[in-house]
Amino acid sequence: MVVTLPEGYSFRALELSDYAKYIETLKVLTTVGEISSESFAELFNHWKEHPHIYQPHVIANTEGLVVATGMLLVERKLIHECGKVGHIEDISVAGSEQGKKLGLSMITGLTELAEKQGCYKVILDCSPHNVGFYEKCGYANSGVEMVKRFS
Amino acid sequence: MVVTLPEGYSFRALELSDYAKYIETLKVLTTVGEISSESFAELFNHWKEHPHIYQPHVIANTEGLVVATGMLLVERKLIHECGKVGHIEDISVAGSEQGKKLGLSMITGLTELAEKQGCYKVILDCSPHNVGFYEKCGYANSGVEMVKRFS
Repeated sequence: MVVTLPEGYSFRALELSDYAKYIETLKVLTTVGEISSESFAELFNHWKEHPHIYQPHVIANTEGLVVATGMLLVERKLIHECGKVGHIEDISVAGSEQGKKLGLSMITGLTELAEKQGCYKVILDCSPHNVGFYEKCGYANSGVEMVKRFS
Repeated sequence: MVVTLPEGYSFRALELSDYAKYIETLKVLTTVGEISSESFAELFNHWKEHPHIYQPHVIANTEGLVVATGMLLVERKLIHECGKVGHIEDISVAGSEQGKKLGLSMITGLTELAEKQGCYKVILDCSPHNVGFYEKCGYANSGVEMVKRFS
């Protein structure tokens, strides 16, 4: 799938200097809480120490500021001849950037990254009302997500 | 939840010497393929080098042989105040061991491990016909699994 970003926008790996805008963009998705620059740097470095597993990405606007987020987590399994599975997590698009197909660009970018690394599949979980969007991204319904939350 | 394993059975971390029975048990779940002891050792060591992320477990019978498998993958996120999420993967029970609630024991064991490590939730994907089983394990439906497979 060929996806064109708006002129001047880029799909790239998360950088340490993305701190404020990365957090701001993720707040569109869910609860983030107060995260200091030190906590962000610690997590960023943890991800960076495991580059084959954690692959956090962003879409940046013409000013280089984060307007969309997405994580590709690559899991090495035993099944499927020691196959790899990509997990897409924490997709979020800034409220002011809706309508530019940035979600589609992010999913396409992460999916291509997973394919290049030899994953045999990519999976993600979504709300029922987002199924249509992911179908447009080339994904198909394959099961049920179950959760247990701890208080 | 208190779950009692059959007398002499144990829930424990995967060991290198589990090679043959671990693979045999996973073949109940899905395609595994031919995996040499060298490939297994390489993957086992990769998992072992990332003990905070990959936590492969088994249930062993009275002879110490693997009769059930399960992986807990712990993901560090930014959302939820740099929260951790447990992913349960690759649950399988040997065909000859059905009816002993080993699946329930495995899920309970992995879920407790995730809680002890401070995960705010544990998630897993399953087929619609397994939803009832996971509800008995204390899990609730929370979304749809979407997949894109590469040929």
